[in-house]
Amino acid sequence: MLHATARILNYCVALASFAAIAVCTLYIANSAAQSGKESQPQAGTGANSSNASPIYGVTIPSGYRDWKLIAVKQLLIPGIADQLRAQVGNDIAIKALREGTMPFPDGAIIAALHWTRVLSDNDSKVIAGQFPGAQSFVIGSAVNVQFMVKDSRKYATTGGWGFADFTNGKPGDKKLHEACFPCHGPAKVHDFVFTHYAATP
Amino acid sequence: MLHATARILNYCVALASFAAIAVCTLYIANSAAQSGKESQPQAGTGANSSNASPIYGVTIPSGYRDWKLIAVKQLLIPGIADQLRAQVGNDIAIKALREGTMPFPDGAIIAALHWTRVLSDNDSKVIAGQFPGAQSFVIGSAVNVQFMVKDSRKYATTGGWGFADFTNGKPGDKKLHEACFPCHGPAKVHDFVFTHYAATP
Repeated sequence: MLHATARILNYCVALASFAAIAVCTLYIANSAAQSGKESQPQAGTGANSSNASPIYGVTIPSGYRDWKLIAVKQLLIPGIADQLRAQVGNDIAIKALREGTMPFPDGAIIAALHWTRVLSDNDSKVIAGQFPGAQSFVIGSAVNVQFMVKDSRKYATTGGWGFADFTNGKPGDKKLHEACFPCHGPAKVHDFVFTHYAATP
Repeated sequence: MLHATARILNYCVALASFAAIAVCTLYIANSAAQSGKESQPQAGTGANSSNASPIYGVTIPSGYRDWKLIAVKQLLIPGIADQLRAQVGNDIAIKALREGTMPFPDGAIIAALHWTRVLSDNDSKVIAGQFPGAQSFVIGSAVNVQFMVKDSRKYATTGGWGFADFTNGKPGDKKLHEACFPCHGPAKVHDFVFTHYAATP
């Protein structure tokens, strides 16, 4: 139960990307995913339905781990989630974020990478030698990855965004994906995307 | 004073990249930096001494903001530093990290981007609707950026690494840079680099 809760949490509170409008008229996208006949796969290649997210039919885009960095976040929900997070984007998404182009143009994809956050005793010790009380937190293990894929026509009923949540390469279930768009409503002013491009230090 | 302390802290506890051995025999590298005659600039282009780090002569490499993500960290020192951090690398560094090639080959550059960490009231509110007590932290403002540049010959006395710390595009002073290498001693087993390549979710 905790795991399920955490997974929904992971998605719902993505606060790293994503968009949507309401859980309605999803049949078309869902149908496309089921048939595996997407004429223009939004991400990944040669996907079949088992590799695509329910409702949206989004597959894992190849090479996303190497996309450019948008920003970093931390999520803490005592007893449920303790994560370090990074949001990255493909070139279309990065260009839009830098130039402030809203809504995002078609083809933009944002990925949210989530890991557990753990205290590094070794790193903390090094720092604490000079600064008592210092705590350095690092990435523990991978939790999940989420995607927002912009296609204003295909995903017209969900703000132009298709969503996907993968754990160990497998998409979450339909119920999980039904929660995506409503959760992103509060970010409507930023085209349903929570994350903002971090200033260059 | 607090600012100076924090800046030294930023460097010393980089815990995101960097290397070194001891503050000795730095004259050669320092001399090269002063003369501005680096035959093979490690980073940036057309740098003059005012744009290069003391001791090491490292300038800001162009395009580092777009480098591939290595990992994410959080540093907390009550009253002094509260940061979210990202480490990125050029292609040589990324390849070495993925393949476990140690020591890093010449040409590898690692950048550590540091930002303030702030609580996002809006994001937290969205999450807390379903998960009371949730806290979402996002990037506030840029703090500084640090680089480790591998050149086993040029920086032979500091583990093969040259260091640099920039705030608002300007390098820190000599004293600050003298602290780099000693602080990275505990990471010697990983070629003086604290950060590790994060698993792909």
